[in-house]
Amino acid sequence: MKSLERLQRLFLQALEASMGEPEWNRQPDRLYAPQRYILAMGGKRLRPILALMGAESVGAKAELALPAAHAVERFHNFSLIHDDIMDAAPLRRGQATVHERWGLNTAILSGDALFVLAYKALESAPKSAQPDLYRVFTRTALEVCEGQQWDMDFEHEDQVEEGAYLRMIRYKTSVLLGCALEMGVLSGGGSTELAKALYSFGLELGTSFQIHDDLLDAFGDPQKTGKQAGGDLIQGKKTLLWIELARRSPDHLHQALALNGTERVAFLLEALETTGVGAYGEQRRRAHYDLALEALDQAGQLGASIGDLRELSEWLFSRDS
Amino acid sequence: MKSLERLQRLFLQALEASMGEPEWNRQPDRLYAPQRYILAMGGKRLRPILALMGAESVGAKAELALPAAHAVERFHNFSLIHDDIMDAAPLRRGQATVHERWGLNTAILSGDALFVLAYKALESAPKSAQPDLYRVFTRTALEVCEGQQWDMDFEHEDQVEEGAYLRMIRYKTSVLLGCALEMGVLSGGGSTELAKALYSFGLELGTSFQIHDDLLDAFGDPQKTGKQAGGDLIQGKKTLLWIELARRSPDHLHQALALNGTERVAFLLEALETTGVGAYGEQRRRAHYDLALEALDQAGQLGASIGDLRELSEWLFSRDS
Repeated sequence: MKSLERLQRLFLQALEASMGEPEWNRQPDRLYAPQRYILAMGGKRLRPILALMGAESVGAKAELALPAAHAVERFHNFSLIHDDIMDAAPLRRGQATVHERWGLNTAILSGDALFVLAYKALESAPKSAQPDLYRVFTRTALEVCEGQQWDMDFEHEDQVEEGAYLRMIRYKTSVLLGCALEMGVLSGGGSTELAKALYSFGLELGTSFQIHDDLLDAFGDPQKTGKQAGGDLIQGKKTLLWIELARRSPDHLHQALALNGTERVAFLLEALETTGVGAYGEQRRRAHYDLALEALDQAGQLGASIGDLRELSEWLFSRDS
Repeated sequence: MKSLERLQRLFLQALEASMGEPEWNRQPDRLYAPQRYILAMGGKRLRPILALMGAESVGAKAELALPAAHAVERFHNFSLIHDDIMDAAPLRRGQATVHERWGLNTAILSGDALFVLAYKALESAPKSAQPDLYRVFTRTALEVCEGQQWDMDFEHEDQVEEGAYLRMIRYKTSVLLGCALEMGVLSGGGSTELAKALYSFGLELGTSFQIHDDLLDAFGDPQKTGKQAGGDLIQGKKTLLWIELARRSPDHLHQALALNGTERVAFLLEALETTGVGAYGEQRRRAHYDLALEALDQAGQLGASIGDLRELSEWLFSRDS
């Protein structure tokens, strides 16, 4: 994964350099400090890397896609600030969330400002690509809001269909991965057709990625994931596993409600195994991964260099955190 | 004010027509209903009208500036949704605020989505103007966030300088009026120089407008303003009047703290009169109005037709609500 590391480094250097620019040192500091804080928290930087790889896949310099990379990373972090408020989450990556540290109002507002700065990043993108970049970015931003609203709506629903769940994660998560790739290709001067092919790849990769997250929440090693084992199950979050368990064996869910935290997790994990829901999740994760690789091959047939993206996909597929 | 009414009607018709478009009827409805709700609440529609007048001032059809008009009106309403959360305001124009009616989370998220739709509106603007429109809009959006943060910061400060207050209202209120005019001119194919002249006009008009609001809060007729008389004074909001009273006669503010709501307002209104602070506010309001008219004349010398904008200024200056 030499390319992954190279592009990760490229983006992190650009991120650090940007923090020294006047743009990030405006007043009032109380508005900008929370933005710098969440952007510095780390993570895989998957979205900006996809943007950079998108440009390289059409033979362009990755640097051309840095504005798009900043845009998707800023947008992603804006959505994390606001999502953490909505989820009343106290921690992110082991650190206090923005609303915990600075209060609700500054969290709302610094999120808003980070969203503006995502658009601002696009002003440095290649001029000829800008109209398409704005269009793709705006379409995606709206879909991410819709996905988050669907996710919140699910909390008040007793039953959720798998189709509705897949649509929710496509909007909430996958479209931004696709958008990063599409914007990367367009920044690199690639064709609309190729940009669309890699967008489709990103959609399926994102769906596989999210189901993977659901599985890691249940079966992952807390030491590696840094999350409480079965956190989603305790909260009754409607993940793919919850939905399929409710379909196959609603009795298990009813019985689980009578148990406390630790017992409930142990009981539900056992149920996921005996009912075959765990294996089903694994199979769905692979199915979307296979669809992603198919879309990637199509992009290859259109002339894209897809080696790095294939390696990245394999790395994501085999991750344990 | 025939032009005002004509352009108000033009915008309201466009607003109503847009509500029938697929864009406003997407799912989940819970995300879009709050946006339609606040956009339908009414108001003077000052910002979109300024955009339309900006286009007409350079001899272009107002219709060319409709996308810019939608953008500033949507942005304004997005900021109202989020500001109402931050102010914990239960009512706006006598109706429940979005967070009161739909809850905090949907208010945050529908605000975010309305902000995206503001950008989306620009996709329909004249192609050649788009790069400038995006740049001006993004710069302004960031400044409005900064203004709101300054306003919140003031709550925790014992003393606020008039200069800091003027900077705050310039960012929170005035820049969006300037932006509406600048985007209107650019949409109509006007020069950058002319756009800047009308931007300056908008800045001063906005500052005069906000001081006018401060004065109406204290001395206006509640029957006409639809607001509690002295609402700002009761809350201890740092308006121009509060700041000048604190400078001239801090004793009055201390004594006021010992009184209850109704008595406090009566006492402070009296103090504003006897100390001459009310007259000072009136004088500051007129000073910024005069600066606005000066900037407007400059735009006229650059070739703009400024008759409608002058009439609009006079109407705003003489408003009692």
